[in-house]
Amino acid sequence: MFKQLARATRAFGTNNRVGVFGLGNMGLPMALNLQKNGYEVKGYDVSPAGLERAAAAGIKVSDCYKSTAQDVDYIVTALPVTAHVDETLHREGGIFEVANKGTYICDASTISPDASVRFGTKAKEVGMTFLDTPMSGGINGAKAGTLTFMVGGTEADKDAVTPLLKGMGKNIFHCGPSGTGGVAKLTNNLILGISMVATAEAMAIGEKLGADPKVLTNIWAVSTARCHSVDAYSPRPDVLPNVPSSNNYDGGFAVALIRKDLGLAMDAAKVANAEYGLTQNAFDYYAEIEKQGYAKKDFSIVYQYLMNHNDMAQSGIKKPE
Amino acid sequence: MFKQLARATRAFGTNNRVGVFGLGNMGLPMALNLQKNGYEVKGYDVSPAGLERAAAAGIKVSDCYKSTAQDVDYIVTALPVTAHVDETLHREGGIFEVANKGTYICDASTISPDASVRFGTKAKEVGMTFLDTPMSGGINGAKAGTLTFMVGGTEADKDAVTPLLKGMGKNIFHCGPSGTGGVAKLTNNLILGISMVATAEAMAIGEKLGADPKVLTNIWAVSTARCHSVDAYSPRPDVLPNVPSSNNYDGGFAVALIRKDLGLAMDAAKVANAEYGLTQNAFDYYAEIEKQGYAKKDFSIVYQYLMNHNDMAQSGIKKPE
Repeated sequence: MFKQLARATRAFGTNNRVGVFGLGNMGLPMALNLQKNGYEVKGYDVSPAGLERAAAAGIKVSDCYKSTAQDVDYIVTALPVTAHVDETLHREGGIFEVANKGTYICDASTISPDASVRFGTKAKEVGMTFLDTPMSGGINGAKAGTLTFMVGGTEADKDAVTPLLKGMGKNIFHCGPSGTGGVAKLTNNLILGISMVATAEAMAIGEKLGADPKVLTNIWAVSTARCHSVDAYSPRPDVLPNVPSSNNYDGGFAVALIRKDLGLAMDAAKVANAEYGLTQNAFDYYAEIEKQGYAKKDFSIVYQYLMNHNDMAQSGIKKPE
Repeated sequence: MFKQLARATRAFGTNNRVGVFGLGNMGLPMALNLQKNGYEVKGYDVSPAGLERAAAAGIKVSDCYKSTAQDVDYIVTALPVTAHVDETLHREGGIFEVANKGTYICDASTISPDASVRFGTKAKEVGMTFLDTPMSGGINGAKAGTLTFMVGGTEADKDAVTPLLKGMGKNIFHCGPSGTGGVAKLTNNLILGISMVATAEAMAIGEKLGADPKVLTNIWAVSTARCHSVDAYSPRPDVLPNVPSSNNYDGGFAVALIRKDLGLAMDAAKVANAEYGLTQNAFDYYAEIEKQGYAKKDFSIVYQYLMNHNDMAQSGIKKPE
């Protein structure tokens, strides 16, 4: 009876139908939270294993773009890189071709702000609305429904998607026009990527000069050095529990991903004639670690890179598969 | 009567006589707090104006090294650079020549850790104890008696000077052997100096790409970009109240001082074969701003340097006198 009522309501257009593209470590818990919060969810993933996992978790899945994108009020995309979002929107049978006019597309991926602006313009041409809504909070935030979303688009469009985003997250920030959600995300990760290197450089210097890593961390955490990389994510093993450095640099935020985000920030900065030294320098560190075969390890492994004179092989840490 | 008793007690060696060298913005409030906490304080300063100011505040002052250093239990030095500490210790009539055997010398200056080790060795030869006890907390912390002291020396020596340091500060950290107090301070400022540049780079990029500086700051402050430079010391004017950037970059922590601290960190790192890219890069930024005539402005002015394509003259900010 309740189910029938819900269906009837939906049929009369109560704005609760969502297509989710990308059912990975982020997309799947986001889809589940939407469903828990009363949304009618359909899910698509490029991988059969991903589809199977989502189906087992209770999501109505499909391997067809059209059946996922059509007859929904919202589409959420949570994909690895700009090219995936591009393809999902523009390919034959993709979102721009098959979704209904009036559909709101929220792209929660971290992609080029420039691309977001282009996608926003194209969406308007086909009678849809595309917003960049990148997120922070990681896998735990996605599961708990406590993600932060950074929204680029008009105030009105932001208001229109806020209930949906609240179904997956907690803090919704309106950053400004199209693309500025991505700018907020990328600049956040730029500071993170640099401050991790700063913490690693300071720790390596301090340790080599005979200071105790735990004492250094205790001091920095209550002084002007305090930051996420110091007090919640120490790159030095055995200083903090439950962080990747204390777990062989597994889990966490991959070197390849911070390198990608710094690269996107640099590309965006180039357009604005704002190319700066520390961003480039941090990018180079992560790119070199990736080149040495450690792309999948947590980015705090930069501490090992520095301690071992830029040679990861000397660190004794096994390359990931 | 009480005064007589106090004098009598002192005469029997109750460890409450202190000579303070350097009565500047830090040294004077530190001396006043020691006095307030029951210590018998004598003060020296190189400048007549400094002596006059201290005398007016109630400190017993002298322009003579010997009368300040002799017949005290402790000496506190709070001086600008390594050379000043060196001179105060080694000159004719300096501390090592005139202070009593058994005197504890606490150097609260930020100097080369290497020099601290040398001074510690020399102190032992003349029957004294020298500890590096650099501080953080700034002028406000000095006035409030809430400074943090980072102590390099033996555990026993640290215990011996802890009551004295508690007379001027709140948190006393034992960092390890001689020199490691300085290492803790310098690595703290290394992270601070880099994270300020990181925040400035991110802000300049974000702003040039159309994001709102206040929104960026609000997002960063609750995300993984959070750090002192983001949430308590924004380099972008009119984002936070009561910070140097909102006050024409006056007050705060001078470009010349962060450049000096990064330089000391680099010198120390060189000895340990730990020379790293971001430290050098941040140093270069501050050194260049100093070269352009802005040494006395707050270090967060690096934001203006970046926004104006490395040319401070374009910033519209007047060079300090």
